Amino acid sequence: MTADEEYMTLCIELAKKAAEKGECPVGAIVVDKDGRIIGEGYNMREAEQMPTAHAEIIAIEQAAKAMNSWRLTECTLYVTLEPCPMCAGAIINSRIKRLVYGAFDEKGGACASLMEIFDYPFNHRPMVRSRVLQDECAKLLTEFFKDLRT
Amino acid sequence: MTADEEYMTLCIELAKKAAEKGECPVGAIVVDKDGRIIGEGYNMREAEQMPTAHAEIIAIEQAAKAMNSWRLTECTLYVTLEPCPMCAGAIINSRIKRLVYGAFDEKGGACASLMEIFDYPFNHRPMVRSRVLQDECAKLLTEFFKDLRT
Repeated sequence: MTADEEYMTLCIELAKKAAEKGECPVGAIVVDKDGRIIGEGYNMREAEQMPTAHAEIIAIEQAAKAMNSWRLTECTLYVTLEPCPMCAGAIINSRIKRLVYGAFDEKGGACASLMEIFDYPFNHRPMVRSRVLQDECAKLLTEFFKDLRT
Repeated sequence: MTADEEYMTLCIELAKKAAEKGECPVGAIVVDKDGRIIGEGYNMREAEQMPTAHAEIIAIEQAAKAMNSWRLTECTLYVTLEPCPMCAGAIINSRIKRLVYGAFDEKGGACASLMEIFDYPFNHRPMVRSRVLQDECAKLLTEFFKDLRT
């Protein structure tokens, strides 16, 4: 298993915690330049009734606190699902160096599916890798919505 | 003075509080369907060293707490400056009905300047009005950066 896959496995574990609480299962972590995990989060929108409580925002805010800086310039964000515009924007704002995600979000993804937000001339552009443990990440969501319907 | 201008005047007052603290002066409020202010915020990025601490995010989170709901479907967000992708994304995620802003952000605006994010097929699209007290809103920023240079 590569390092990217190992970190994504941790995101999948976080996503499962969201599912256990009835939340759409998405998990994210922020890793610093030395490979340490400095932020983690899972979707909490329903539990907190908070539109900003996405996994990535929670992980980024925790990382900024850990670094005592809004600049996460040497960090990598791992997340099971392609980020939405809000979370992609938070990646731009925090100057995260690299984004690694698993599954595509055909209904709301801003990094490939509905738009390629990082192709616009904002003042930061992360490196992006997608499809890491894609099947496992997507399966979390399909099983969650299958259970929800039954 | 129209209602939109009155609410924008309040945003300008909030933006001035940010400037007093050495923050880039941007202020925002969320108003519910009855015209009550249920959220307000000003930029706190430097003071909190937090990449997500934009005026709009703070106002939206306060409004969600006030409504005890992530859905702000009948609300209007007023902000002195054109939202960035993160904040525009938070507007989509919170289903805010209407966005009213003052000045354009030619370097980072996601609603007209660098992109028109609401033209993409996300699952919500707010009504948008720009240029409300545009000159006053822009002046806040030009004076702040002029002071910063001297």
